[in-house]
Amino acid sequence: MTSGRLITFEGIDGSGKTTQALRIQSDLERAGRQVLYLREPGGTRIGERIRAILLDRDHVDMSLESEILLFAAARAQIVRELVLPALQEGTIVLLDRFTDSTVAYQGYGRGIPLDTAKALNRFAAGSLEPDLTFLIDLPVDVALSRTGRRTGQVDRLDVEDTAFHERVRQGYLRMAEENPRRFRVLDGEKDEDSLALDIQTILKEGIVT
Amino acid sequence: MTSGRLITFEGIDGSGKTTQALRIQSDLERAGRQVLYLREPGGTRIGERIRAILLDRDHVDMSLESEILLFAAARAQIVRELVLPALQEGTIVLLDRFTDSTVAYQGYGRGIPLDTAKALNRFAAGSLEPDLTFLIDLPVDVALSRTGRRTGQVDRLDVEDTAFHERVRQGYLRMAEENPRRFRVLDGEKDEDSLALDIQTILKEGIVT
Repeated sequence: MTSGRLITFEGIDGSGKTTQALRIQSDLERAGRQVLYLREPGGTRIGERIRAILLDRDHVDMSLESEILLFAAARAQIVRELVLPALQEGTIVLLDRFTDSTVAYQGYGRGIPLDTAKALNRFAAGSLEPDLTFLIDLPVDVALSRTGRRTGQVDRLDVEDTAFHERVRQGYLRMAEENPRRFRVLDGEKDEDSLALDIQTILKEGIVT
Repeated sequence: MTSGRLITFEGIDGSGKTTQALRIQSDLERAGRQVLYLREPGGTRIGERIRAILLDRDHVDMSLESEILLFAAARAQIVRELVLPALQEGTIVLLDRFTDSTVAYQGYGRGIPLDTAKALNRFAAGSLEPDLTFLIDLPVDVALSRTGRRTGQVDRLDVEDTAFHERVRQGYLRMAEENPRRFRVLDGEKDEDSLALDIQTILKEGIVT
């Protein structure tokens, strides 16, 4: 049994989920809560090395199967090395991407059968499920224009076309429909402060008390 | 349909399988055959980076799940990038470790459920099965004394105890019993030349004509 809370932040790149997750971390810490922010893939020494393989632009020939297995390997490590121990100590764990990203990107986006993606998730995450998932939703063109502005650095996973990101977005929305108790869909076109307020309100509703 | 042949070499470390695989490669090449020797994990640029993570001695805290997923990721890549294209060209592919290693090491050795190990193999290998598997079998103490003599370099996977290697050995023998058409069990205590002769004889029996 876990006594902490696992809160995940999902959405297409450029949705603002990292910004929001880090704001919530500060807010909760100021309120005296023990909080751990982690990003996927990565978060552990092993996971960061896996992340580097996944993002390397030279790896244009990476197979779909290899890609999803590498994400799963990084996830298996972060869950056992950091997330489960933190939850057991009562920490609120904020995860910037988790199992839903695999279903959205490798499943809906790239065409790996959804059942396969979910089975890999179950193995990698050891059946750990988020208590709450914030899906920050916004139109693909808005998100892409933000990521283009961001740094000019482009990694292997950034080079997909608009149609791919649209499939990912629609996949996320479908998952949110199918899991209404766990998902909260937020309007990613709102400004940063309004979005943060929406998230704070939801958290105060009692999921994190 | 593949027109080449996939021959795998399996056994515990110190069994001599790499030596034998490389000898067979030379023999077949001298006989005018097109041959590709590859080792797992590794063999591709992506796979060699995964191999480095798997063997790094600093990674003592790698989870079982992460380990088996990394092996699967390296396998998914080598199958699609090298093995399948080579088989389609009629090449004889010699693989130094393949799916049976996962069942033997992570399944029988470390206790991952055998069904899970086999399901991951099917996903990673895309249902590709070896045409022939040489299992070079020998007592664990003989094998360990050989690997200890070899280089003095010890990687993360070398530090397991005798009981672990014994479970792996017995797992291999059970798989050979269960798949008698595919497996040929060889006596790894024989000298190198005798073993090579045994392998040549089996190959001439018609599996590779």
